[in-house]
Amino acid sequence: MLEELKEEVCQANLDLVKEGLVIQTFGNVSGIDREKGLVVIKPSGVSYDVMKPEHMVVLELASGKVVEGNLRPSSDTPTHLVLYRAFANVGGIVHTHSLYATAWAQAKRSIPALGTTHADYWHGDIPCTRLMRPEEIAGEYEAKTGDVIVETFGNTDPMHKPSVIVASHGPFAWGKDAHDAVHNAAILEYVAKLASLSLQIVPSTGEMQSELLDKHFLRKHGPKAYYGQK
Amino acid sequence: MLEELKEEVCQANLDLVKEGLVIQTFGNVSGIDREKGLVVIKPSGVSYDVMKPEHMVVLELASGKVVEGNLRPSSDTPTHLVLYRAFANVGGIVHTHSLYATAWAQAKRSIPALGTTHADYWHGDIPCTRLMRPEEIAGEYEAKTGDVIVETFGNTDPMHKPSVIVASHGPFAWGKDAHDAVHNAAILEYVAKLASLSLQIVPSTGEMQSELLDKHFLRKHGPKAYYGQK
Amino acid sequence: MLEELKEEVCQANLDLVKEGLVIQTFGNVSGIDREKGLVVIKPSGVSYDVMKPEHMVVLELASGKVVEGNLRPSSDTPTHLVLYRAFANVGGIVHTHSLYATAWAQAKRSIPALGTTHADYWHGDIPCTRLMRPEEIAGEYEAKTGDVIVETFGNTDPMHKPSVIVASHGPFAWGKDAHDAVHNAAILEYVAKLASLSLQIVPSTGEMQSELLDKHFLRKHGPKAYYGQK
Amino acid sequence: MLEELKEEVCQANLDLVKEGLVIQTFGNVSGIDREKGLVVIKPSGVSYDVMKPEHMVVLELASGKVVEGNLRPSSDTPTHLVLYRAFANVGGIVHTHSLYATAWAQAKRSIPALGTTHADYWHGDIPCTRLMRPEEIAGEYEAKTGDVIVETFGNTDPMHKPSVIVASHGPFAWGKDAHDAVHNAAILEYVAKLASLSLQIVPSTGEMQSELLDKHFLRKHGPKAYYGQK
Repeated sequence: MLEELKEEVCQANLDLVKEGLVIQTFGNVSGIDREKGLVVIKPSGVSYDVMKPEHMVVLELASGKVVEGNLRPSSDTPTHLVLYRAFANVGGIVHTHSLYATAWAQAKRSIPALGTTHADYWHGDIPCTRLMRPEEIAGEYEAKTGDVIVETFGNTDPMHKPSVIVASHGPFAWGKDAHDAVHNAAILEYVAKLASLSLQIVPSTGEMQSELLDKHFLRKHGPKAYYGQK
Repeated sequence: MLEELKEEVCQANLDLVKEGLVIQTFGNVSGIDREKGLVVIKPSGVSYDVMKPEHMVVLELASGKVVEGNLRPSSDTPTHLVLYRAFANVGGIVHTHSLYATAWAQAKRSIPALGTTHADYWHGDIPCTRLMRPEEIAGEYEAKTGDVIVETFGNTDPMHKPSVIVASHGPFAWGKDAHDAVHNAAILEYVAKLASLSLQIVPSTGEMQSELLDKHFLRKHGPKAYYGQK
Repeated sequence: MLEELKEEVCQANLDLVKEGLVIQTFGNVSGIDREKGLVVIKPSGVSYDVMKPEHMVVLELASGKVVEGNLRPSSDTPTHLVLYRAFANVGGIVHTHSLYATAWAQAKRSIPALGTTHADYWHGDIPCTRLMRPEEIAGEYEAKTGDVIVETFGNTDPMHKPSVIVASHGPFAWGKDAHDAVHNAAILEYVAKLASLSLQIVPSTGEMQSELLDKHFLRKHGPKAYYGQK
Repeated sequence: MLEELKEEVCQANLDLVKEGLVIQTFGNVSGIDREKGLVVIKPSGVSYDVMKPEHMVVLELASGKVVEGNLRPSSDTPTHLVLYRAFANVGGIVHTHSLYATAWAQAKRSIPALGTTHADYWHGDIPCTRLMRPEEIAGEYEAKTGDVIVETFGNTDPMHKPSVIVASHGPFAWGKDAHDAVHNAAILEYVAKLASLSLQIVPSTGEMQSELLDKHFLRKHGPKAYYGQK
C-alpha cells in the first residue's frame, strides 16, 4: 500500500539527519496522497539508524485512523493532519528541533526578512505563533498546535511562506511533497542562522526593502519567474 | 569482576568523544552496581584512543577504596561517589567540559527552561551551584563539589532534572545507567546551546509557560507518558 | 571552445562546495579570457552533484550574448559582466551566500579591518554597497547590482580590496582568475566570522592601526612583498 | 641534520591542520635543540598538503642564520627566535590565526580566567600585548613582535601562562616541545571560545575565584600535582 510514498517519506526522514536538522529521534516528516486521502508518517520514537519504509505508518486524512503499520505514529501526527486539512496545496510536512529555528521559537520572535536568501523562499517574515492557552495545552495539545498555526496564517498562502515557528517549541515546514518540505526546512535553518548573526553584528538591523523582497520572491515563484532552467 | 559493567562504562566514555562532548582527556563516566555496592569509573588522564574495559577502575561505594584496577581512578571520583550515595535512583554519572554547558557554568547562571526540547528532559531549569567556599576548595575539593551539588538539589528528584551546572567549572549529568547518563549529557549540551542562542536573539527571553513545561515533561515521563513505542 | 577555462571555472564552482561557501544551488563562479573577450560562467540552478565542464556557458563580454552552451547562464550573469567591464585586472568572479559575509550584508555594514588576517588581503574595510533604488530593482536588477558595486569602488583598485558586500544580499569576490577568486571568497568568509566574533567580545572594537594595516598588506602585495617563496 | 626534530616539527605543523587551528597556509610551528643552539621551523607560504620533514628550515638561535634548507623560513621566524632567547624553558612555539583566539586579539582584550578548563592550563588571564608603536611596525616588525610579547610577560614564568594574544593579530602558544605547544594552542582556542560564549550569556561575567584558579592550576602543575597517572 502506497509503497512509493512510504519510500519517499522514509527517505525524507533520513535526509533530516543528513541535513543536520535533527539529533536523537527528534523530528518527523510526512507525505500525503491527496487522491486517496491518506497520510504517511514516521513512527514515534524509532531510531533513524534502523528506520525502513515498512516502518512508516499510514493514516486516513479525514478520520486520523491508522490503516496500516504496526508502530504508533509520531506523537505530532495530529498537528500534521490539521495542517493537511487546512493547507490544500501542501504535499509534505516536516517538524524538527533544528538549532537556529528552535532558538527563534524559544525567543518567541518571528524571523524578519533581512536579505535575498530569505526572500528567495518566503514572501515576508517567517511568523511565530501566539502562546497556546492553558486549556489548549491541557486538551488535544498536538491538534491545537495545528490550529494555532492555521490561525497564524489566516489568509496567507502557505506556499508563499513555507514554514512557521511555534512559540517555545520549534519549526514546522512544508512543501509540494516530502522532499520539498525537507528542502524548505534546511533553508529555514540557514535563514534563521543568518538572521541571528545579522542581529549580533547590528542589533537594530531592520527588515529589507519591500521592493527587493518582492523582486527576489517573484524571480523564483509565480508566473514571471526566470530563475533556474525552464 | 563486573566485566559487563566495565564494558558498558568504557563504551560510555568513548561515546563522549563520538557525541563531541570532550576534547583531550577531559571528561569521565562511571556506572554503579547497586547490589554489590561497587562503582566503575574511567582512569585519570588516559587517552581515549587507547582506552579499554580492563583500564576501568572498580571502587567500593561505601569506602571509596579501589578494589580492582592498576590505574588511578579519575580525579573527580569523590564527586561521583557523593552523588551515588545521595541520589539512590542514579545508575550512571557523566562529567564533561562540553562547550555550551561549560559556558553557562562559567557565566554562573542556571539554564532557564525556554522550550519543549528542554522540557522533554528537565522539569524546570538546570540549576547552577553556589560558589564554593575557600575552605571547601582547600579541603576535600572533589568530595565537596559533590556536597554542593546535593545541597543544590535539596528535595528535588534528581531524575526530574538529570544534570547540574557547577559554577566556574562545568556540567555533571546522570541517568538510569552510564549510557543514559551520556544521552542526557548530549541533550544538555544541545539545550545549553539553544538557550544561549535564544538569549542572543532576544536578550530578555523569559521562561516558557509552566503548563507547556509540565505537558512536555509528563508526556515522556511518569505514569501518563504517551511518547515513543510502548 | 575554451576547454581549459571551462574546466577551471567548473572546478572553481565545485571548490565553493568544498570550502563550505554554498548550500543548495546558491553561488556561482565565472572566469574570463580577456584576449578573446569571452566569459565562462555556471548555468543557472543546476545541482553541484552533476555539474561538468560542458555545462558551462560561454558569453561575449561586450554584448552579453551566449555563444556556446545549451543551458541558461546564472541569473547573476549581468552582474559579472558589468564587473569585468569596469575592473580590467579581474580574471575571475565569485558570488556566494556564505554565512558570515551574508550576515554582514544583511546588517548592511562594511566589515572593518580589525586584524592582520584581514590586512593580508584587503587594504582597508570590505565595503558594503548603498541600498538600491526601487527603479534599479524594478529594471535591469542584476546589471544594476554590478553598477552599484562599481560606484562603491570609485577609484579604489579592486585588486586592493578583492570583494564587496552587497547590502541585503551577499558577497561578491574576485581575483586574478577563477581559482584565486574562490580563495578570496574563502578568506572573506573567515574574516567576516572573525570580525563578528570580535564585536561580540568587545562591541566597541575599532579599526586596527593604519600602520599595521599597511605593513601587512604591503608585506604580501606590491613591489616590496617578502612573504612566501620567491 | 636534526632529523628527529625536523620530523617532530613537520608533524606538529600538520597537527595544526588536524586540530582545526589553521586555514590556507596561515600558522607555523618551530622546535628547538637547546644543546646545539639550533631552531627548526616551517618554510614560508608552503601548502600543508605537500609539506615534508625535509622542507623544514634549520637556523642558528644566536645569529638567526639559516644553516640548512633550500626554502625561506616562515616570515614569523624572528618572533620565534626572540621568544626562544627570552624564555629559557620553552622547547616549541606555535603561531596561528585560530578563530576565537584571533577574535580576542582583534578585540584587543586579555582572555579572563572564567573557569577550571582555563585554570588547568593558565595561572591567570591570557594576556593581550599592548599596541605596537609605528616605529616598531616600520622597523624589524617580526622581531619587535617578539619583544612586545617578552615585555608583556615581565617576570611571569612563561610555562605558567603558555600563550599570549598579540593585539590586532593573533595568538602565540608554547610548550616543552613542538607537540606540547600545539596541544596548548588547541586548548587556548577552546578556552577562548568558552570565554566568548560565557560573555555572550552574561556580558558582565567576572573572573573566577582566585582560590579555585590556584587549586586547578596546582592540581596539574608543580610539586603537589595529583592529576593523571604518576
